Amino acid sequence: MGSGNVATHLGMAFVAAGIRVIQVFSRNFEKAETLSRKLSCEATNELAGLTDDADLYVIAISDDAIPDVVTAFPHQGKLLVHTSGSTGMQVLQGKTDHYGVFYPLQTFSRDVALDFGNVPLCLEASDAETGKLLEDLALRLSVNVSWISSEQRRKVHLAAVFACNFVNHMYAQAAEILEDNDLPFELLRPLISETARKVMEAHPHSVQTGPARRNNSGIIDKHLQMLEKNPGLQEMYQYISESIISHYGNK
Amino acid sequence: MGSGNVATHLGMAFVAAGIRVIQVFSRNFEKAETLSRKLSCEATNELAGLTDDADLYVIAISDDAIPDVVTAFPHQGKLLVHTSGSTGMQVLQGKTDHYGVFYPLQTFSRDVALDFGNVPLCLEASDAETGKLLEDLALRLSVNVSWISSEQRRKVHLAAVFACNFVNHMYAQAAEILEDNDLPFELLRPLISETARKVMEAHPHSVQTGPARRNNSGIIDKHLQMLEKNPGLQEMYQYISESIISHYGNK
Repeated sequence: MGSGNVATHLGMAFVAAGIRVIQVFSRNFEKAETLSRKLSCEATNELAGLTDDADLYVIAISDDAIPDVVTAFPHQGKLLVHTSGSTGMQVLQGKTDHYGVFYPLQTFSRDVALDFGNVPLCLEASDAETGKLLEDLALRLSVNVSWISSEQRRKVHLAAVFACNFVNHMYAQAAEILEDNDLPFELLRPLISETARKVMEAHPHSVQTGPARRNNSGIIDKHLQMLEKNPGLQEMYQYISESIISHYGNK
Repeated sequence: MGSGNVATHLGMAFVAAGIRVIQVFSRNFEKAETLSRKLSCEATNELAGLTDDADLYVIAISDDAIPDVVTAFPHQGKLLVHTSGSTGMQVLQGKTDHYGVFYPLQTFSRDVALDFGNVPLCLEASDAETGKLLEDLALRLSVNVSWISSEQRRKVHLAAVFACNFVNHMYAQAAEILEDNDLPFELLRPLISETARKVMEAHPHSVQTGPARRNNSGIIDKHLQMLEKNPGLQEMYQYISESIISHYGNK
């Protein structure tokens, strides 16, 4: 159930692992069909039309829509999971005794291909038998499988917003500065790559660099002046610099 | 001149490319010696003791200290460059007619090894002859060489603060959230890697994801509640989310 970025990448990972996808559901039939073609399966835009023949039903839709889909889910006693970072597992109870969470901790863009084999899969299950099934399935898709409770998963998702969504917004701000000055974003790519690579082994605290880390008010003031025509960026520069200074002080 | 992160990595890149380093200067003799041992060369802590025998003198010290070192530089007519992103080239004039800038656009941590061969080297030169010399040198170290004026270089450095320093601070904030909840930072590494990898080809605007991108106030409010015990992080979450929402609106 679902036809967005997570549904698409997860569906393709299933197929690539030799796990048959029977059917795609989306309220928007065109979207259901587009994904079903990729997965060589049926499409439906009616929850009532969901096959009763699947071993597993995956709800990969926006968080807000999960409760309604659970309520309208037409079968009893099936194995039901969702893929949401911020939704508790208990939203699934009532329809079945066997349910769980299958949360891929990764950023998916529809048109960006991805190696699913290293995606951390965060699992939670209603019972040991369901847990065993989900773990076997997860290990067919990725080497990186963890058991994470609903409470922890919410924290993981929150941390991911900083490490991914906010990080990408910083990239976008940098791109804006360059493009406003007729410089190509390309110039920054090696720096972006290396900044990420450094924390593959080091802890981010130990590799923080830059004017704010050195508490270099001369450079910080120059940068703030350069951003005078862009108050939004200027405020963000000041805000994050102050946060870095307060974290590291003169250490 | 200098014994910090840039001086260390640049010195090692010179040596690796078969370019002889004659001498390291640092006010702190111990630091000068440590680096000179790595580069198999002399060390001095006196500017007056600088060899007059070098083809090139590289000032790789903190921005604030550059003017004083230029003033005290004991030779006339030498080829003199600095490596600073935020300092104009003209700070070097007066001592010589041949000067320039050799700015490596990369994040250097002393203990993190690095492949210098892809580091963007941003060059500027006082005259064509100096330019030719610096370009030949740069191309022995890296395939990625650009001509960037002092004015542009300041913008590039500013953009780099967002793309590197602020990004790393986001990683650190994410680490803090995980560690406060007894979860390992390790869990986020594939996401960090992929977030950087996506912008190696795509523009960051086109791959922005997350609750703020979708203007999902339900999740944003939940996240703000979860950060209630950490007002600094809470404020940052709100601040950056609002910036993302204002950039993308309901697009």
